Amino acid sequence: MDPIAPSSGGCDRTADATAPTNTTVTLPPLTLRDVPRLPAALASPPPAVPNPITRHPYYHPPSTFYISPGDVSLRHAFFDLASAAPSPLVAYRRAGPRRDLAVDPARASAALVTCGGLCPGLNTVLRELVVGLQELYGVRDVFGVAAGYRGFYGGDEDHVRLHPAAVDDWHKKGGTVLKTTRGGFDLAKIVDGIVARGYTQIYAIGGDGTMRGAVAIFQEFKRRGLNISITGIPKTVDNDIGIIDRSFGFQTAVEIAQQAIDAAHVEAVSAVNGVGLVKLMGRSTGHIALHATLSSRDVDCCLIPEVDFYLEGKGGLFEFLYERIKKKGHAVVVVAEGAGQELIPRTDEQKREQDESGNIVFLDVGPWLKSEIGRWWKREHPDELFTVKYIDPTYMIRAVPANATDNLYCTLLAHSAIHGVMAGFTGFVPGPINGTYSYIPLEDVAVAKNPVDVNDHKWAWVRSVTNQPDFLKS
Amino acid sequence: MDPIAPSSGGCDRTADATAPTNTTVTLPPLTLRDVPRLPAALASPPPAVPNPITRHPYYHPPSTFYISPGDVSLRHAFFDLASAAPSPLVAYRRAGPRRDLAVDPARASAALVTCGGLCPGLNTVLRELVVGLQELYGVRDVFGVAAGYRGFYGGDEDHVRLHPAAVDDWHKKGGTVLKTTRGGFDLAKIVDGIVARGYTQIYAIGGDGTMRGAVAIFQEFKRRGLNISITGIPKTVDNDIGIIDRSFGFQTAVEIAQQAIDAAHVEAVSAVNGVGLVKLMGRSTGHIALHATLSSRDVDCCLIPEVDFYLEGKGGLFEFLYERIKKKGHAVVVVAEGAGQELIPRTDEQKREQDESGNIVFLDVGPWLKSEIGRWWKREHPDELFTVKYIDPTYMIRAVPANATDNLYCTLLAHSAIHGVMAGFTGFVPGPINGTYSYIPLEDVAVAKNPVDVNDHKWAWVRSVTNQPDFLKS
Amino acid sequence: MDPIAPSSGGCDRTADATAPTNTTVTLPPLTLRDVPRLPAALASPPPAVPNPITRHPYYHPPSTFYISPGDVSLRHAFFDLASAAPSPLVAYRRAGPRRDLAVDPARASAALVTCGGLCPGLNTVLRELVVGLQELYGVRDVFGVAAGYRGFYGGDEDHVRLHPAAVDDWHKKGGTVLKTTRGGFDLAKIVDGIVARGYTQIYAIGGDGTMRGAVAIFQEFKRRGLNISITGIPKTVDNDIGIIDRSFGFQTAVEIAQQAIDAAHVEAVSAVNGVGLVKLMGRSTGHIALHATLSSRDVDCCLIPEVDFYLEGKGGLFEFLYERIKKKGHAVVVVAEGAGQELIPRTDEQKREQDESGNIVFLDVGPWLKSEIGRWWKREHPDELFTVKYIDPTYMIRAVPANATDNLYCTLLAHSAIHGVMAGFTGFVPGPINGTYSYIPLEDVAVAKNPVDVNDHKWAWVRSVTNQPDFLKS
Amino acid sequence: MDPIAPSSGGCDRTADATAPTNTTVTLPPLTLRDVPRLPAALASPPPAVPNPITRHPYYHPPSTFYISPGDVSLRHAFFDLASAAPSPLVAYRRAGPRRDLAVDPARASAALVTCGGLCPGLNTVLRELVVGLQELYGVRDVFGVAAGYRGFYGGDEDHVRLHPAAVDDWHKKGGTVLKTTRGGFDLAKIVDGIVARGYTQIYAIGGDGTMRGAVAIFQEFKRRGLNISITGIPKTVDNDIGIIDRSFGFQTAVEIAQQAIDAAHVEAVSAVNGVGLVKLMGRSTGHIALHATLSSRDVDCCLIPEVDFYLEGKGGLFEFLYERIKKKGHAVVVVAEGAGQELIPRTDEQKREQDESGNIVFLDVGPWLKSEIGRWWKREHPDELFTVKYIDPTYMIRAVPANATDNLYCTLLAHSAIHGVMAGFTGFVPGPINGTYSYIPLEDVAVAKNPVDVNDHKWAWVRSVTNQPDFLKS
Repeated sequence: MDPIAPSSGGCDRTADATAPTNTTVTLPPLTLRDVPRLPAALASPPPAVPNPITRHPYYHPPSTFYISPGDVSLRHAFFDLASAAPSPLVAYRRAGPRRDLAVDPARASAALVTCGGLCPGLNTVLRELVVGLQELYGVRDVFGVAAGYRGFYGGDEDHVRLHPAAVDDWHKKGGTVLKTTRGGFDLAKIVDGIVARGYTQIYAIGGDGTMRGAVAIFQEFKRRGLNISITGIPKTVDNDIGIIDRSFGFQTAVEIAQQAIDAAHVEAVSAVNGVGLVKLMGRSTGHIALHATLSSRDVDCCLIPEVDFYLEGKGGLFEFLYERIKKKGHAVVVVAEGAGQELIPRTDEQKREQDESGNIVFLDVGPWLKSEIGRWWKREHPDELFTVKYIDPTYMIRAVPANATDNLYCTLLAHSAIHGVMAGFTGFVPGPINGTYSYIPLEDVAVAKNPVDVNDHKWAWVRSVTNQPDFLKS
Repeated sequence: MDPIAPSSGGCDRTADATAPTNTTVTLPPLTLRDVPRLPAALASPPPAVPNPITRHPYYHPPSTFYISPGDVSLRHAFFDLASAAPSPLVAYRRAGPRRDLAVDPARASAALVTCGGLCPGLNTVLRELVVGLQELYGVRDVFGVAAGYRGFYGGDEDHVRLHPAAVDDWHKKGGTVLKTTRGGFDLAKIVDGIVARGYTQIYAIGGDGTMRGAVAIFQEFKRRGLNISITGIPKTVDNDIGIIDRSFGFQTAVEIAQQAIDAAHVEAVSAVNGVGLVKLMGRSTGHIALHATLSSRDVDCCLIPEVDFYLEGKGGLFEFLYERIKKKGHAVVVVAEGAGQELIPRTDEQKREQDESGNIVFLDVGPWLKSEIGRWWKREHPDELFTVKYIDPTYMIRAVPANATDNLYCTLLAHSAIHGVMAGFTGFVPGPINGTYSYIPLEDVAVAKNPVDVNDHKWAWVRSVTNQPDFLKS
Repeated sequence: MDPIAPSSGGCDRTADATAPTNTTVTLPPLTLRDVPRLPAALASPPPAVPNPITRHPYYHPPSTFYISPGDVSLRHAFFDLASAAPSPLVAYRRAGPRRDLAVDPARASAALVTCGGLCPGLNTVLRELVVGLQELYGVRDVFGVAAGYRGFYGGDEDHVRLHPAAVDDWHKKGGTVLKTTRGGFDLAKIVDGIVARGYTQIYAIGGDGTMRGAVAIFQEFKRRGLNISITGIPKTVDNDIGIIDRSFGFQTAVEIAQQAIDAAHVEAVSAVNGVGLVKLMGRSTGHIALHATLSSRDVDCCLIPEVDFYLEGKGGLFEFLYERIKKKGHAVVVVAEGAGQELIPRTDEQKREQDESGNIVFLDVGPWLKSEIGRWWKREHPDELFTVKYIDPTYMIRAVPANATDNLYCTLLAHSAIHGVMAGFTGFVPGPINGTYSYIPLEDVAVAKNPVDVNDHKWAWVRSVTNQPDFLKS
Repeated sequence: MDPIAPSSGGCDRTADATAPTNTTVTLPPLTLRDVPRLPAALASPPPAVPNPITRHPYYHPPSTFYISPGDVSLRHAFFDLASAAPSPLVAYRRAGPRRDLAVDPARASAALVTCGGLCPGLNTVLRELVVGLQELYGVRDVFGVAAGYRGFYGGDEDHVRLHPAAVDDWHKKGGTVLKTTRGGFDLAKIVDGIVARGYTQIYAIGGDGTMRGAVAIFQEFKRRGLNISITGIPKTVDNDIGIIDRSFGFQTAVEIAQQAIDAAHVEAVSAVNGVGLVKLMGRSTGHIALHATLSSRDVDCCLIPEVDFYLEGKGGLFEFLYERIKKKGHAVVVVAEGAGQELIPRTDEQKREQDESGNIVFLDVGPWLKSEIGRWWKREHPDELFTVKYIDPTYMIRAVPANATDNLYCTLLAHSAIHGVMAGFTGFVPGPINGTYSYIPLEDVAVAKNPVDVNDHKWAWVRSVTNQPDFLKS
């Protein structure tokens, strides 16, 4: 398409220093990417239950309190006026309370479930779903489903009634009070279980596998014509889910990762020719490694899945490490879990294996890289002292409670989810888009990846900080 | 103006649950709010120094690495399609490295100065300015100016040469290694000092008074026709500066504030009829109080400058506290520094006083409120046990080093500032707008307030959490 | 008395460097300072219930597991052979499990009570009393008495049955889950309440006032001939109770105090002529101030109740501060709560006041000293910039949970208490003496002070570290 | 020997409850275990340099400030009056400043060296040695020797002059600013290097290997008749050195270990049939594991080198874990590094290997045990969900700075060392004995082990807490 047409001379150097100047252009059209609604919400006339906040004894919401039907957020917060802008521009529904509900809180029954690995903030999301449902909307029937999706077809002990007093301090606990598992996804049994127990709202908290499962459940609800909503709340400490700004727990993870990097740095500088190696979470994306590196400034090299690297020869990791050690006396390396997978020798059995969620088995890059570094030095510099210390802080990171930033995020996320469900939306994910909490179709989120863009200047910042090589073989 | 015209039936309930649907509308025009340039950058032909990153020995920037002249960010990330959108939409220049510089790094001499109170991250900003100037651009002459603006006309001991090795661990230190002061703004002496020392780039880090000073310096540079740039980096732990998403140090402050709230909560619950009272920073805005309340969930009442409150009578604070104590056995109150200023009795002298930056003197709401609460209980409930514990964590909050989130923010902020200066911009502030680092005219930022919007649902969330009263006298 | 008689030439310089040498001397006699026993334990023949640990299903205690009747600990761990040793040497009974009990766990009913201010570890002591009584000895009836001593004559809601599951995570909480109060000591009502509810073991956790109350209760039990034991567990974050090595929570307090000192240091160094002032707990003793100073090394002056100081003139605080500021650019002062009480101007009303425990009212040395320092500078150095920042971290220190060191201490303390009660002891305090947990008569502990010894080299260490003046007016 | 003879009826039940009673006994003789002295200190007449503290400008030491020649500390703080007391009782010289020095500070030259692995507090000890030597005694020549013992015969770059300003903030850093290595012990080269550089005081900080090296150096000094002192400062995060109360860094290690145990607990409780496994430092002793277990209370089983355990069959670990998981849903296991070494299959090569310090190579019990637990469950309970998460926090523990408790300990330890050296002692170790800082012959410390006494009630406390089995095969 054509560049966006400036109505004046564009952004060239005609401005003087006297004052800021203005240039006006015309934007492409805007398209709202809407989320599905429950059959009841689509009925004609639709139900119109007034939002109970309107009758709140202490708080009298002003007219601006409610989100209006036309409130949207823009997906793209920046673009190049001089070249092709995204056309059309995409918008999403803004999250928040609606004046009229499509769901009667008195008849609602909500089920919360957590799947997959731990992530800081899980318990805060659960707490806020319970508190928000009961205290904001008066939903009395709220249940925690234990042990992941399989809990839906488990026994009564897997369905625990929850209420605000019971969850009062959950946000101060790491992990998930509802136990979590992987796998166990049996669509028919799950939906049968949901129907049998009379749940009308499902909140599924989990990773990309869980989101894909939620899409399947959403479609099965639709096939059966059920007035049951399903909302996906993406839980990925790696921040590997797209469209949303970031996932909950991510900031906490970056914070705690500093402890591991600090320790690796201390070990490295306290040794003669010391190398500190830290493996951080990130199977498909290097966001934690990238952010932890930029926050720390003690890292000499950051290896992520998005950038291939090699060990030997000109421009390789070993050459770089040797130069850095000779210059500074030590080096600190951060490697994301998913980096270098293709370099690690894999047995035939390992080539076949899959984990319970169907993901291919990752080999542990940390011990392999530690061993390779040690062997290289012994081979190339046998007469020089050397130490390499390896730290894997994974469980010490992911098991902590959310920090204040993530606790607030989890709160807004959970409340956004509830407001959307009460408005009659289903098959959606709540999440911040350029800072605005919005509703996004579940099926979009389930397939959205979020790799580190190694071509923009954010990754270049890491390069600037570390001065590490390109690993581009010439 | 008219509502944005939808090209289809708008955002009504015509969608079905089968799939997300799309609605397309036409947007108002977009206006770029540009920043000033140095006289040299406006010359014809302008200087064109290639960005030295292009010749970086380790990193080969792809074409997408550089910000193009048309790259802009949108000020408003959400709007209501059904009603009046802001017209025209406002955009700012996107921050980041430019392919061509208007400033020759070899002839640049940069001066960094910090003014006003402490804020987590100050030293990180300083560190990154030094490291970025020298390692990214090769600027050799970088100086720290001690003791705030007055340092510009101070002696040689107030002008300290800085280099990367000297600042290596500054991001792990609280406070500012360059000492900071308030006041001392003497425009002529400052600009004379800058000229005398040959500085060509000024980086002024401080609050709103500092930003207004920077505007005056910018205008004096312009009046004298000097090729000296000035960049303002807003430092306000209160987050009371507008346009930008948030100020650095704010997240750290909210994090550490949790310790004080936790302590107040413990004191309150461990006593019979216990009240814990915490004063948090925020003279004109209640952001820290609001965020800390939402992050903590142990707070029963949050008082901010944007909402008037009263103590006695129906709907007042005392009535609320009594009910809460009777119900839960205790209560926790968070009060922002600037709340209730009009309620505190002020002597004639206090009415006249001003601080060194010319701000009116704030009275200390904390001890006053503690005393009022104690007297109320003794008067109204003399036979019942009671305890009120007051915590003022101000200096324990603002003196800590930045956390990982803020360290990363400070890094990107400092690098953004440098990239802009090197591109020939002046009189600007770097900062994130809906997540995109951008350049904003200094004079806009100097007057932009950032009050808590008590009419939107974010403040309502606090209300939801605390169930505190409106303080709307009927 | 005579010096201890060496059997050889004493400790003079007859040794050579070849090997360590031995010198033998004769010690004075040793006297056991015993603790009282319950009437039942003194009966003839005394009851002899076998310790249930003997029949523990998993653990088979070896013979060395039990404390024998002759196991004692020495009060003095060091003495001067060349001069008068304490004569007689004093010993206490060693704490720990006994093979034979004088109390039948099946008939025991324990009551736990907390009095006075908060202290890290209170909840750990409570937790371990509950867990130890039930899991080690099988005592089923364990009650928490709410709101301090007055709870004994309160209603049923003040007597809460406790069990291990209920207290499982109490050691991770600050404060006291049993609410605490001051005062309310009515001997007759308390003992009547104890008898009426059938308690046979009282565990009173509190400060010196609480210990004196426990002595009174012990004597009243004796007067009435009751088979009820009372054990005092000294709770004093100030560490102002004698005989025992230190009080629980003290190490945690010193740890958290570092945060306040760090903040004061940062504020001071970030200002021009900055003074950071921190008030730490310690009404009658300066242990926290002393330990925090020695742990921190950023403190320039440490003021404690045991050392008088003065402000003006030669050798005074102001002279010292001025010299230090001129030399280093800043100064950090730590002042213990009880220091300088006689310097603060006191109104007639203040001279009369007493707190609920009958202590004389302390004036707040912190704001007074801050104000005096500010006025001094303004008066003496009106043309020089100056800043003084004051931090009172009291509640942020005392409300935290115990750290690992104190959690372990509280555990051993609580278990020691239980073992002693089960052995038939009463009117005693458990506590470490030179590292050995021992039993000490309550009446001895109730009057034992623990001032900082300003004549030994421990206080001299602080002097060494700070180089502060003697405050000895010549 | 005979029991200690009571002068009255002994410790039987003759006391009444009226008041504490006294019993007096006669103690065995006391023997001072002295430390060696320098040849100069043994000369007749010995040198007598007055302690410079006597002329301190600010501090006027009272007569009680100095340690007198007869000041001793008792090794045993408790004993059994009814049976054999240790005979003779052993005492050590009390540490602290002496009025007269045997060393002239003006002619002293001190060398500090760190060997072996990292330990919290290393830098604090170094800082305090530098500060104490220069500020207390005026020793101007203080050098840090880099890279361990081998630094003594290294180049000039391995000998760094140190002074108080240079080490000012070292106590806030983890690791050792002097780099540390293992091995490299060449006695002749080391002593030649010491002589060549004119060092007169050696402070060697390291583990048991370093202490044995120090003994050899001490004996070589003696053989050559050199007036050079050597002091050993035991550094063992494991607390595996005897006689002294505990080693520095140990309390910090126990504190940080809580984070790992917390994470393991969260992982375990958040899974279905979850096991959290934490490996803690402790090759020959289980002190860290024991203390961390008692501090945490979330541990279900604690495995230490001092107690053999087995996996399969009646009374084995697997049986216990299964029961615990069935009862509580999860289990947490702490295993000390040195536990179970004899259970791990060892290849022939592994049987032969030794590390650089000559210790036998330890196999990593953590991954082995994790794997065994996983295989057991899969074999025995193939149809039940199961998760085992393994955490090795070793480097994240040992690389942190010392906490306040350890910082204070390191300070007193370093100052004690200096006072002893200045008094003319050599071949000694400073350390607290029952709370009193004392001087112990190096050769005693070099061979003193400090195993956990599994027969006393301290280990029984762990048993009480965890209810874990005896692992005594019947």
